[in-house]
Amino acid sequence: MSTGLSAVGSPFKRVDATAKVTGRARYTDDCIMPGMRYAKYVRSPIAHGYVSTIDTRAALALPGVDAIFTFQDVPDVCFPTAGHAWSLEPAKRDVADRRLLTRHVRHFGDGVAIVVARDALTAEKAAALVEVSYEELPVITAAEQALASDAAAIHPGGNLLRHSEILANEPQEAIAAADLQQHASFQTPVIQHCHMEGVTCFAYMEQPDHIVIVSSTQIPQIVRRTVAQALELPWSNVRVIKPYIGGGFGNKQDVLEEPMAAFLTLKLGGAPVKVELSREECFFASRTRHAFSVDAELGMNRDGHLTGYRLNVLSNTGAYASHGHSIASAGANKISYLYPRSAFGFDATTFYSNLPAAGAMRGYGAPQVVYALECLVDDAAAELGLDPVDVRLLNVARSGDVNPVNHKTIYSAGLIECLRKGRELFEWDARKAECVNQTGDIRRGVGVACFSYGSNTYPVGVEIAGARLLLNQDGTVNLQIGATEIGQGSDTVFAQMAAETLDIPFEHIRVISTQDTDVTAFDPGAFASRQSYVAAPAVRQAAAELRGKILAHASVMTHKPVWSLTLLNGNVVLESCPEEVVMSVGDVSMHAYYHQEIGGQLLAEVSHKTTSNPPAFGCTFVDVSVDIPLCKVTINRIINLHDSGRILNPQLAEGQVHGGMGMGIGWTLFEEMIIDAKSGVVRNPNLLDYKFPTILDLPDLECAFVETYEPQSAYGHKALGEPPIISPAPAIRNAIRMATGVAINTLPMTPKTLYREFVQAGLIGE
Amino acid sequence: MSTGLSAVGSPFKRVDATAKVTGRARYTDDCIMPGMRYAKYVRSPIAHGYVSTIDTRAALALPGVDAIFTFQDVPDVCFPTAGHAWSLEPAKRDVADRRLLTRHVRHFGDGVAIVVARDALTAEKAAALVEVSYEELPVITAAEQALASDAAAIHPGGNLLRHSEILANEPQEAIAAADLQQHASFQTPVIQHCHMEGVTCFAYMEQPDHIVIVSSTQIPQIVRRTVAQALELPWSNVRVIKPYIGGGFGNKQDVLEEPMAAFLTLKLGGAPVKVELSREECFFASRTRHAFSVDAELGMNRDGHLTGYRLNVLSNTGAYASHGHSIASAGANKISYLYPRSAFGFDATTFYSNLPAAGAMRGYGAPQVVYALECLVDDAAAELGLDPVDVRLLNVARSGDVNPVNHKTIYSAGLIECLRKGRELFEWDARKAECVNQTGDIRRGVGVACFSYGSNTYPVGVEIAGARLLLNQDGTVNLQIGATEIGQGSDTVFAQMAAETLDIPFEHIRVISTQDTDVTAFDPGAFASRQSYVAAPAVRQAAAELRGKILAHASVMTHKPVWSLTLLNGNVVLESCPEEVVMSVGDVSMHAYYHQEIGGQLLAEVSHKTTSNPPAFGCTFVDVSVDIPLCKVTINRIINLHDSGRILNPQLAEGQVHGGMGMGIGWTLFEEMIIDAKSGVVRNPNLLDYKFPTILDLPDLECAFVETYEPQSAYGHKALGEPPIISPAPAIRNAIRMATGVAINTLPMTPKTLYREFVQAGLIGE
Repeated sequence: MSTGLSAVGSPFKRVDATAKVTGRARYTDDCIMPGMRYAKYVRSPIAHGYVSTIDTRAALALPGVDAIFTFQDVPDVCFPTAGHAWSLEPAKRDVADRRLLTRHVRHFGDGVAIVVARDALTAEKAAALVEVSYEELPVITAAEQALASDAAAIHPGGNLLRHSEILANEPQEAIAAADLQQHASFQTPVIQHCHMEGVTCFAYMEQPDHIVIVSSTQIPQIVRRTVAQALELPWSNVRVIKPYIGGGFGNKQDVLEEPMAAFLTLKLGGAPVKVELSREECFFASRTRHAFSVDAELGMNRDGHLTGYRLNVLSNTGAYASHGHSIASAGANKISYLYPRSAFGFDATTFYSNLPAAGAMRGYGAPQVVYALECLVDDAAAELGLDPVDVRLLNVARSGDVNPVNHKTIYSAGLIECLRKGRELFEWDARKAECVNQTGDIRRGVGVACFSYGSNTYPVGVEIAGARLLLNQDGTVNLQIGATEIGQGSDTVFAQMAAETLDIPFEHIRVISTQDTDVTAFDPGAFASRQSYVAAPAVRQAAAELRGKILAHASVMTHKPVWSLTLLNGNVVLESCPEEVVMSVGDVSMHAYYHQEIGGQLLAEVSHKTTSNPPAFGCTFVDVSVDIPLCKVTINRIINLHDSGRILNPQLAEGQVHGGMGMGIGWTLFEEMIIDAKSGVVRNPNLLDYKFPTILDLPDLECAFVETYEPQSAYGHKALGEPPIISPAPAIRNAIRMATGVAINTLPMTPKTLYREFVQAGLIGE
Repeated sequence: MSTGLSAVGSPFKRVDATAKVTGRARYTDDCIMPGMRYAKYVRSPIAHGYVSTIDTRAALALPGVDAIFTFQDVPDVCFPTAGHAWSLEPAKRDVADRRLLTRHVRHFGDGVAIVVARDALTAEKAAALVEVSYEELPVITAAEQALASDAAAIHPGGNLLRHSEILANEPQEAIAAADLQQHASFQTPVIQHCHMEGVTCFAYMEQPDHIVIVSSTQIPQIVRRTVAQALELPWSNVRVIKPYIGGGFGNKQDVLEEPMAAFLTLKLGGAPVKVELSREECFFASRTRHAFSVDAELGMNRDGHLTGYRLNVLSNTGAYASHGHSIASAGANKISYLYPRSAFGFDATTFYSNLPAAGAMRGYGAPQVVYALECLVDDAAAELGLDPVDVRLLNVARSGDVNPVNHKTIYSAGLIECLRKGRELFEWDARKAECVNQTGDIRRGVGVACFSYGSNTYPVGVEIAGARLLLNQDGTVNLQIGATEIGQGSDTVFAQMAAETLDIPFEHIRVISTQDTDVTAFDPGAFASRQSYVAAPAVRQAAAELRGKILAHASVMTHKPVWSLTLLNGNVVLESCPEEVVMSVGDVSMHAYYHQEIGGQLLAEVSHKTTSNPPAFGCTFVDVSVDIPLCKVTINRIINLHDSGRILNPQLAEGQVHGGMGMGIGWTLFEEMIIDAKSGVVRNPNLLDYKFPTILDLPDLECAFVETYEPQSAYGHKALGEPPIISPAPAIRNAIRMATGVAINTLPMTPKTLYREFVQAGLIGE
């Protein structure tokens, strides 16, 4: 029985659209509390060393200063900060290497003390009055320094965080046996997430043993656990509330300032204390994207068959582990679906340095390794004189393929269709034909690149999600969900799912957007493009249970057998005669609430674990013009094509793709944190000097979907949140190579990089 | 299986004690929002009339004024305000006679306009600048005026709100057949609740169609419904949040300023608007206790057998219905358990007047009718030369008796034991013996009085309650409950119940004290002494379900059959060998949360309807000295004895009894709103002129419990919240009669009243 119109798959407007565009939506910084206090850090001006002396007297004397805490005052506890669900296996847990404040400063801006004052300005002034002297240590910014045998140890265990190797089907042999061996090295930069809403939170206490934290976080439940670990409290003593949030992109998949806010309120007798980072601090004292150095090799036969490839990754995690090695190893897991019939080798090393700490960021390692792989595949195709699209059509995943690493069958694989549809929409052949034998200053090129990406973290992480549905008197339904809306539109698609399974109008679902760890169904949060996939079964099962309860009560009311009734568009109707409206869902609800003796509030709650993780696929086609003398790249046309299974909401999906493409272009052509290699000082920690592309810097962003139906998925869908960022970079790089003949293997491809490369290639003089 | 120590029945400290005494608990007024606006009413200085002209120009010109709304601007919708669960039967619904603002002013201080400004002082100043002229109507303050055939109609339907009659076993005949017929008339005053925290709320919007109200209310779900009705919105468009609250005593069992706050934020584009009443406004513009006039008659045989009684009640509900006639009729229902073997007649009339609107207040009609009945029983005993305790022992309810009105069997009845225990503890016989043949200025007397009181509103109202339990990782449990903690200690006893049924330590239960109608399990709220009784089955059933889930998961973990395991003091133990700790509940929880494939968050939620309503019983013994020339009563000793079934928490129960006795003494000897009979003006609307007893004015308050076990109750308990207020008044009055020979039938028995009565009785000269 259905309305004919499916709630899932329709382009509903975001449920929070009006709240956000009218300014009514309240974010963390919109919450104030009487007596609120403000904290500001005293930060290290050097990237590596020890505090020798610290003198807080002048700062404490400033009127309005409540307290100053130094590294000597914080618990002697190391805690992890990565936004991963806890693991029962100690070996799978995140590295606990961070204290609230530190004597051993490990990066420019590391926190050695913190001032709490009646207002932010006083706190800032006082922080500047804290006198600190340092004993300097050698600053390590690169792999060779970090991994040198005589390197200064950034952490007690040394600078090698972890090494791992994945091999499938003997890649070395497969590469050697191929007609062609292609090899290159690739470098990716340190960048920052630049979410609109900065890093901010506050904490207070009502009960003597219960800390409440309001935070702009993607991961309220993980924040709760980590704060408890950092302060050595029972986990239930911490409550985390997530209001509306203005973007995270992975930065807020780390536990950031919440442990500090909790520590401060605990020290100040429960007074509300706010810890808000400035934009500058976000750059050097939250998290960044890992810089990767990838040494890549592949084997390809003359017909374009990719026999095998191996990627040797060096991942620079900076001063603290945060997500640490899991970024590098996740990169491997996520791309191992792309060319499943080729042998696969992945060797990854993650090391500490004195850069700001790197953490999760949209794509989570995949952009870096896909960049390397998809550049190299393109170079091999060029070498062999093959069409890059043809080469990919030959090698990419098809339905029925088996992932060579984890041996999981790929049920839905629309990448071939994406490539075919893209080739047609983009007019690949015609455009490519226009790019041959170019001379002149401005030359054109077209490029293509593919990716695969998982739909959650299983089997690495536990994939648990929860949903609760409460039927209101008026027949509407409140949906309380552990999955966190962070701007990606998850609230809207969950409302669509509930509406579809209940068969009530979409407008009748009200999503409770705020997560509150005390009462919201458990879900570790927004990351790994997991939410729509792993929360969907909980929503669907809860909706099915509620539907059953509505029909059962309607059956009691009407004396009709429950099997004779069904729901249609918010009404109870006869299964046999759907045009016969028996009563509205609101009528059933009113009776259930208010009948003197029978019924009750109708509701359902489900906590569900997901044990499947199908890959999403997609590709980018791009047409660029390169002004060689100006070292300037102009994107003439760019289109992303995605197989994310069934598309839940075309409008929101398009938004996700546009956002990801924009960030991808930023990473490819614009963004880089400029960190002095000798001193570790961050030179451009602000949005003026850190060149982030605005809408004026971006081309029209086109996208198209190839809808497949993933059979393991509650509504046929797969991941879409992170994937759009992945393939633009190699596609653009490949187009630039076609235009100029120069294979640029260092991101970002700013004019500065292009100049260096073009000079080196002899395209322009020095 | 049990710990030997029972969580229910133990004197645990209130779960909110520390939060409250340290000032950490946050109440409605502790919440502020950026951009908050403040509203102040323009109130009528006359008690009855029409607005002729209203001029807001001068007020609007005041800088800082955002808007002014008059009766012309509000929806033309009448809404009810009583805190009753909705009814499917229209005849059972509350009277909808109130608009947000009114042209027809019906009491001193009725609201004709409201100013919204950037701060409260500006709003107040602007309100004073609104120029209003009135056309005056006759002011009605008493029954004879209200019910006169030519009376001015306060509401379109006239001034008779409702009349009802209950008869059981032909009371007129039973009274006539007795040896003695006793008759008297009784008057009770208008009083006010005087909760510490005033009437306050604020409202704001985040979404275009969703109003959020934060309010100090006993009844968040009813506020939600009523606001929606007042503004003609779907009920789910309103969300009500109840923070900690500083007392309500029934005043906040009315929907007070929430509809206005919601209206204002709606008009102001969602800006937060606060509506807070001053203490003065609480007196004349919130709710009061109904003044009753009771004409009472009984028949008693020479042996003390009460053959029957009838009470004719005139209830003055003031300007608006609020709870209206249900107060008077509830009084009958609640006392019909007291003397179940006597014929019973109850005739009640509720009328409108131009007094401030009366509503619910602790006892809900029972104090007034028990006062009349228990005075009259005492007078008859005195007339017949019988001991008042003996007379009651002869007539009061025993287990197995059947209520003559509703024909319900009384299973637990400890009143006989209360009287016997009280007689002994109080040394009734010795004290009474000291009170004979007194002369002199100061004379002593002893008095006794009994009461019965229901445990909820069934079958008049629907009794629905909900509870949700979530197991935390550390083995503690969050209890989210619809029942509202308003200072009575309900959070604490619910934690005890959950601890007992789960068999985990009390300290491991964390109660979510805030109700939020969007997510909290449905419960209409705190009234009718219902909460511990009607929410207990929901807590017990949810706890039993959660217990089952914990054991089932432990069984999966341990490969032991589920029947071999049980819970003991927070651990899973072997049923057969309880000292064998298999693992902690925390261990089970961690595994359920974080195992890669099985388990999930363990939780349970239950919405439950209660269809039993057993009566609580009790009595007061009091010893007073009366200084006849000074017209001053001193309480030498007072003790309340209660049968409330099993006592959930002796310390909290004692607190409830002390509070009720103190309020009861206030009503008996101190409190009265002085309202000018001609003008309807309230003369003492403040805590200086309204003589409210403080701790210095009260005697030591003693109490004792007779524990019975009510078999219909989830934990054996019955009502205790309101009962302690009921019997002090007649007991004190009866003691004064014994001391002075003067039967004072008007409350409060202030020196002013005593002077009038003593002069009339010839005890003192004029």
